[in-house]
Amino acid sequence: MGVVVSLEGDRDKRGKPSLAALTALVEEDLKAVNELIVQRMASPVVLIPQLAGHIVAAGGKRLRPMLTLAAAKLCGYAGRRHIMLATCIEFIHTATLLHDDVVDESDLRRGLASANAVWGNKASVLVGDFLFSRSFELMVEDGSLEVLDVLSRTSSTIAEGEVAQLITANDTETGETDYLNVITGKTAKLFGAACRVGAVVSDRPRVEKDALETYGVNLGIAFQLIDDVLDYSAKQATLGKAVGDDFREGKITLPVILAFRRGDADERTFWRRTLEDLKQEDGDLERAQTLMERHNALADSVERSRHYGAIARDALGIFPDGAEKTALIDLIDFCIERAY
Amino acid sequence: MGVVVSLEGDRDKRGKPSLAALTALVEEDLKAVNELIVQRMASPVVLIPQLAGHIVAAGGKRLRPMLTLAAAKLCGYAGRRHIMLATCIEFIHTATLLHDDVVDESDLRRGLASANAVWGNKASVLVGDFLFSRSFELMVEDGSLEVLDVLSRTSSTIAEGEVAQLITANDTETGETDYLNVITGKTAKLFGAACRVGAVVSDRPRVEKDALETYGVNLGIAFQLIDDVLDYSAKQATLGKAVGDDFREGKITLPVILAFRRGDADERTFWRRTLEDLKQEDGDLERAQTLMERHNALADSVERSRHYGAIARDALGIFPDGAEKTALIDLIDFCIERAY
Repeated sequence: MGVVVSLEGDRDKRGKPSLAALTALVEEDLKAVNELIVQRMASPVVLIPQLAGHIVAAGGKRLRPMLTLAAAKLCGYAGRRHIMLATCIEFIHTATLLHDDVVDESDLRRGLASANAVWGNKASVLVGDFLFSRSFELMVEDGSLEVLDVLSRTSSTIAEGEVAQLITANDTETGETDYLNVITGKTAKLFGAACRVGAVVSDRPRVEKDALETYGVNLGIAFQLIDDVLDYSAKQATLGKAVGDDFREGKITLPVILAFRRGDADERTFWRRTLEDLKQEDGDLERAQTLMERHNALADSVERSRHYGAIARDALGIFPDGAEKTALIDLIDFCIERAY
Repeated sequence: MGVVVSLEGDRDKRGKPSLAALTALVEEDLKAVNELIVQRMASPVVLIPQLAGHIVAAGGKRLRPMLTLAAAKLCGYAGRRHIMLATCIEFIHTATLLHDDVVDESDLRRGLASANAVWGNKASVLVGDFLFSRSFELMVEDGSLEVLDVLSRTSSTIAEGEVAQLITANDTETGETDYLNVITGKTAKLFGAACRVGAVVSDRPRVEKDALETYGVNLGIAFQLIDDVLDYSAKQATLGKAVGDDFREGKITLPVILAFRRGDADERTFWRRTLEDLKQEDGDLERAQTLMERHNALADSVERSRHYGAIARDALGIFPDGAEKTALIDLIDFCIERAY
């Protein structure tokens, strides 16, 4: 059943990092996670598996549960608890996605059909609640108070990060520190918890749990930074997501913060009109992209991302070399290089 | 510090049952709960305590945490864990209220200013998520896997009940069994869990935990039935809530189910127009009330409520007589008699 994984990591034909090494490493476990996801989203109330299935199926990469699986492998774990806990992590993530997509009273709509567009706000909220509760049921079944502690605190932090994002939305005065706090809360902490849980089930010493959490949190920040870059770069179109969603919603991300701070008075008037007042015309998105290009805002956001990627890489230094470590390091490169 | 509580229960001057006996019994503990609520909804993200404070302050009776406190007292509990767990129960309830008030894309609005009307849907959803996560943090702090098991399963059930209610909304074909399933999930199970937790912290035998849960679930059904009656009865106005909210939303409650099933073809056309198609005109609410009167729908809903109240009362039979038991029995009467 062994999977051959190159210790050099996996690069595609153009020498680009890919997810292949990680995917191969956790392939069988991930299959078990996917089966458990379907099994545990079941409910006599049929709308629940319908709506949850829509979002879980659309979820795609399963990056977060893969982190738990790979972290457990890195720690030499040989049991089955990581399957259930990886499922918990994906349920929390899916609940967050559902709640994140609930639109406000504004007329804004995402480029794609989200669950709330199909079934309405309320159904999205309630099915999110169900998945969230179900995730705690799974943790209780697992029975580790340490895991429960990590994940309940993470859930509060995610909610705090999301509320903080709501407050910074449409506020061009938002600084880089505020932005970092927001993405750490809403994205990176769950990456960190997903990794830490892998060490917790393996009963590793605290220094290894902390190292894996540090890896995860910094990977998560790097990941979100690139996500926010992609929302303004043409590359995004090839990823199946629409360019310009953040712009249309007036979300304040690092590319905006850098372009705004480096811009002149005219440019700041433009950013305020489009992102604060949400008065947008044809050609505004293109102008935003031009201004970002002028001020190197996208390239420098990628540079910032590399910084967090470097911290993540060094955090893994205490672990022995091997296929697992290589796959996790490749993942950092993959998350950053997808910007190009 | 003793509080004198009449073993005859507490009745006001007109001989009506009141909450006074229960309130006196748990007064000091409830004060501690209220302090813990304020303390644990704190967050550096100020919108969270603002919005949560709005809904917690408006929440009123604190019926659910009082159940935990009184059940623990009935079981002779002498520790402090019931304070924290009663706070958990109230946080879960408040999160549910916040999510329940999220409006769909329809034009419907509640009579009163709800949190989502003031701060928007998304803030309500996210602060609800925060309170929900915080409630699990408190449970983890308490450290009982049995409590975590009870409350995580209850949370899933509440979400299932809420989704089921969404499906039955505007469907005049909904039967009494469907309705009972909905209110059991969305309301009664949390009443049951609140009571059970009181026996769990007291380390009582299973038969007592089950008895308290049975009391709570049936009290919850009785309570919700009367709540649904009050939405069509003039009495409601004196309670500070608007009559007719359920009607305007097209919610299918027992008074509607009974009036629809007992009505003729003309009447059913009326119910379909107003509740399914939500085409409502001046005078429609009054006509609905007249039809309910004609078919005894409100009085018979109160009768149904008495049935569940009787089950709740008998469930307490295994406990010794005393102030606690009397207060819990009075509570049943209070929940039902407030219909008049």
